[in-house]
Amino acid sequence: MSPFEQVRMNIPPKIPLKLVSLANLTVEEKATSFSRLDEEAIKSLFPKTYGNSAITFVEGESQGNTPKRVGVCFSGGQAPGGHNVIISLYRGLKQLNQNSILYGFIGGPNGFLKQEYIELNADRLALYLNQGGFDLIGSGRTKIETPAQFELAATCAKALALDGLVIIGGDDSNTNAALLAEYFLSIGLSTSVVGVPKTIDGDLRNDQIEIPFGFDTACKVYANLIGNIQRDALSAKKYYHFIKLMGRTASHIALECALKTHPNYTLIGEDVFSKKRSLKDIVEILAAVVEVRSNLGIDYGVILLPEGVLEFTSDYSTLLKELNGVLEKATSIHDTQPQEKIEFVISQLPTQSKLYTSLPQKIQLQLLLDRDSHGNLNVSKIETEALLIELVSIELENRRAEGGYKGQFNPQPHFFGYEGRSSTPSNFDANYCYALGLVAALLINFRLTGYIATISNLRAQPALWQPGALPLTSMLTMETRKGKLKPVIRKALVDLEGAAFLKFAAMRAMLAVEDDYLYPEPMQFFGPEEITDTCPLTL
Amino acid sequence: MSPFEQVRMNIPPKIPLKLVSLANLTVEEKATSFSRLDEEAIKSLFPKTYGNSAITFVEGESQGNTPKRVGVCFSGGQAPGGHNVIISLYRGLKQLNQNSILYGFIGGPNGFLKQEYIELNADRLALYLNQGGFDLIGSGRTKIETPAQFELAATCAKALALDGLVIIGGDDSNTNAALLAEYFLSIGLSTSVVGVPKTIDGDLRNDQIEIPFGFDTACKVYANLIGNIQRDALSAKKYYHFIKLMGRTASHIALECALKTHPNYTLIGEDVFSKKRSLKDIVEILAAVVEVRSNLGIDYGVILLPEGVLEFTSDYSTLLKELNGVLEKATSIHDTQPQEKIEFVISQLPTQSKLYTSLPQKIQLQLLLDRDSHGNLNVSKIETEALLIELVSIELENRRAEGGYKGQFNPQPHFFGYEGRSSTPSNFDANYCYALGLVAALLINFRLTGYIATISNLRAQPALWQPGALPLTSMLTMETRKGKLKPVIRKALVDLEGAAFLKFAAMRAMLAVEDDYLYPEPMQFFGPEEITDTCPLTL
Repeated sequence: MSPFEQVRMNIPPKIPLKLVSLANLTVEEKATSFSRLDEEAIKSLFPKTYGNSAITFVEGESQGNTPKRVGVCFSGGQAPGGHNVIISLYRGLKQLNQNSILYGFIGGPNGFLKQEYIELNADRLALYLNQGGFDLIGSGRTKIETPAQFELAATCAKALALDGLVIIGGDDSNTNAALLAEYFLSIGLSTSVVGVPKTIDGDLRNDQIEIPFGFDTACKVYANLIGNIQRDALSAKKYYHFIKLMGRTASHIALECALKTHPNYTLIGEDVFSKKRSLKDIVEILAAVVEVRSNLGIDYGVILLPEGVLEFTSDYSTLLKELNGVLEKATSIHDTQPQEKIEFVISQLPTQSKLYTSLPQKIQLQLLLDRDSHGNLNVSKIETEALLIELVSIELENRRAEGGYKGQFNPQPHFFGYEGRSSTPSNFDANYCYALGLVAALLINFRLTGYIATISNLRAQPALWQPGALPLTSMLTMETRKGKLKPVIRKALVDLEGAAFLKFAAMRAMLAVEDDYLYPEPMQFFGPEEITDTCPLTL
Repeated sequence: MSPFEQVRMNIPPKIPLKLVSLANLTVEEKATSFSRLDEEAIKSLFPKTYGNSAITFVEGESQGNTPKRVGVCFSGGQAPGGHNVIISLYRGLKQLNQNSILYGFIGGPNGFLKQEYIELNADRLALYLNQGGFDLIGSGRTKIETPAQFELAATCAKALALDGLVIIGGDDSNTNAALLAEYFLSIGLSTSVVGVPKTIDGDLRNDQIEIPFGFDTACKVYANLIGNIQRDALSAKKYYHFIKLMGRTASHIALECALKTHPNYTLIGEDVFSKKRSLKDIVEILAAVVEVRSNLGIDYGVILLPEGVLEFTSDYSTLLKELNGVLEKATSIHDTQPQEKIEFVISQLPTQSKLYTSLPQKIQLQLLLDRDSHGNLNVSKIETEALLIELVSIELENRRAEGGYKGQFNPQPHFFGYEGRSSTPSNFDANYCYALGLVAALLINFRLTGYIATISNLRAQPALWQPGALPLTSMLTMETRKGKLKPVIRKALVDLEGAAFLKFAAMRAMLAVEDDYLYPEPMQFFGPEEITDTCPLTL
């Protein structure tokens, strides 16, 4: 371990006052109004777990605090702070009863189904305090969906005589937690299932879950890099940096980073959708920004692109789906010449042949050539940032031909994603995760099932944070997935009426023409609290 | 300014004991043996400045310290710490004589030729202490080469009555400084010209220049990100990350980052060259690493690629040059069909048609289609990381067909470069740059010309650092550039007999099969000195 890691593993996270002493707490129902969509459908699918209230913890008589046997797994993509959830879950269980046991399932939910686990102990866990990654036990993306999988889950819970199972995950993983909780009760199994809200994407949130863990750190990592690139752009004065940001469909990360760094333009997918923008509209907007700046004598800039932004366009997302359909059916064309392929595809596209025809030959070919090892089209390989750079270049050349644009356009593509998912956690995420793990321990101690741990009042200092839990069923709605109506936790998109977006929207026009770059520091851990202990701006 | 920037601008850099009081210093010649290549040629080109010794500073009688009028510019790419050079140059000049004046030339050497400058003052400079970027006055890449340009330079020096000009730059910029120093003397102009060694690439170094400034910070930024990605790879266990690193031809950055992070494989261009590797050799080495790991049950990994690595191959670099030649001559083929283009090119390539033919169609097409707005081939657009990923994928499929490889290969490309050039400087670079600026002030005070500022003993604490200067002519050799024999500062490549490379080479085989990832922290500024004040490992 490096000197930094050694120092960090010895710094205790800050604990909310309400969670300092777990042994004397009891549960209190909290009056909260949920906007329950699809109430009847959810109620009929979750007869055992539907209808619970949100809860909070108050001082009260000890509830016995018998020893508990608990399992925990990570589910889905990495997010900074995950190790702290497991460590405080362990410490919380031990605080409630020294004889409690914690198992870590290896490689995500699949480790649970296959009964691949390790028993966690204090010495080993201590090495992971405040460290990044999920590498203590790894993660995975297996969904528990089939009857056989549910049976395997029950088999494991019985084999280990689990009192509780903690699933640390995002929207899909917590939907899984809700289904497992209901299933276990339906077969008379007393294993509590509890979720913990994790995802850098920031799309698992509601009135009670102010933000999932990991979002803060990831945005701080990206914002520091964006600031560095902005300072470079301002120094060199000759590049346009197109920076794609991870975050799946929603644009939360891009919005948070835009507020932290003030780049010249930031596309927000939800905004693109609400304004019914086409790919061409987006290209014209970006080209207009470049042209206006150029006419002011500025031939550099920084543009942020959420990775999911083109899914919100009115046309390009459809083209990709149609191309996939055409190439799936017509396997025989794989060996024909490029030009024949293009002509064949144009003749087959149901609605988007005009858009495809309008793309430059290079992009047309890439859309056909980028196939995976099984010969399938791999659309994700056509990078959003490369596509937009190519199209904006062409649009600018058209504008040059018409006399409007006279500048130099030197674009540079970037993609920030994996850099931020396993970073050492910010103090905010380290503290937040530690508090979430303690709540998970309490929920299992009280034999509560089908809940997700919550911490509210996150804008305040950690001592004042409010622990609680929310019934997972209150978060479910019905959606069609792969042709079937299923209960899901709907991804929270950027709220176009929310304070964060409105603040951004109010500066958008100004930032496009006047550089007001901010340069967030690399995450600091030892300095003044106003530098080390900030929370996300979108809170 | 953010709270971090405000705190940082108020932290005085650590100053070498020898530079605490500038007013009582005098110059001493230092016996150093230079390996003077092309001695006669350099001597005849630099009759006025050739033959000087290296110098150091010792306590002695004050030399008058009359007021000086000085200009400064950045030249070439950004490197963290540059602002500190200018600030300490200013403060050093003022310490020597309160009436001295410092001008900053805007946008690099071009600002000098065009007499575009600002007079710098203490209040404005104070805002830039310890901050990243070159945005105070910007930079540029103009070379001063033609007789007309030399005359413009002299005109500016005379117009501003400059006693000194400080050029903060890399190998080419310091060659320019040497030429200007000689030229000014030859026309009887007393303006001293002084260089400061700057470049994140680390390729401007010799016995006296242990490392140029900026290298330390850039490597720390990249190493933190590489560590994050390694932790992600180890957590997710399903991706191969191919990380290209900036650094031009030489592989110093990749070597430093490899020592800091221990990735599974790192290509070193100089090593590729000494072993006469072809592109195919490299692809086979990387595929072998992936196959061996897969047979051990490991389908993830991290691979570092210096951006210049393919220039060192025995064949691919030639192919690119030949393709450029063919396409330059045959402009009429631009409008023909892709397949015709490929066939035409194959028929025209002087020596590398076999290599071109062996490439996958997708790459063949990209090599022809990626043209800039003037229709010229833009080979830099064919990303090294994307090319190697494609070729390794194909090689692995061949190995799978032969029964050797049975794994899953999910590659992810990355490029780290612009993120590190304008970062807030590490404490090392902040202190180092501050010391370099003070030396530059002394050199001009003593009316020394044709020198580059040096600081030695950099592995020690800053108090013990040794200030000095090296005659630029001692660093020059003759090389053919654009068909003409010219004096240049030869880029320092990685020394394959040096301790840094040997340490790396000794672990290389182990790292390929046993994960020993290190996770360097984001740069810290307020913690224990063993965390905040480290120097580059390759020192």
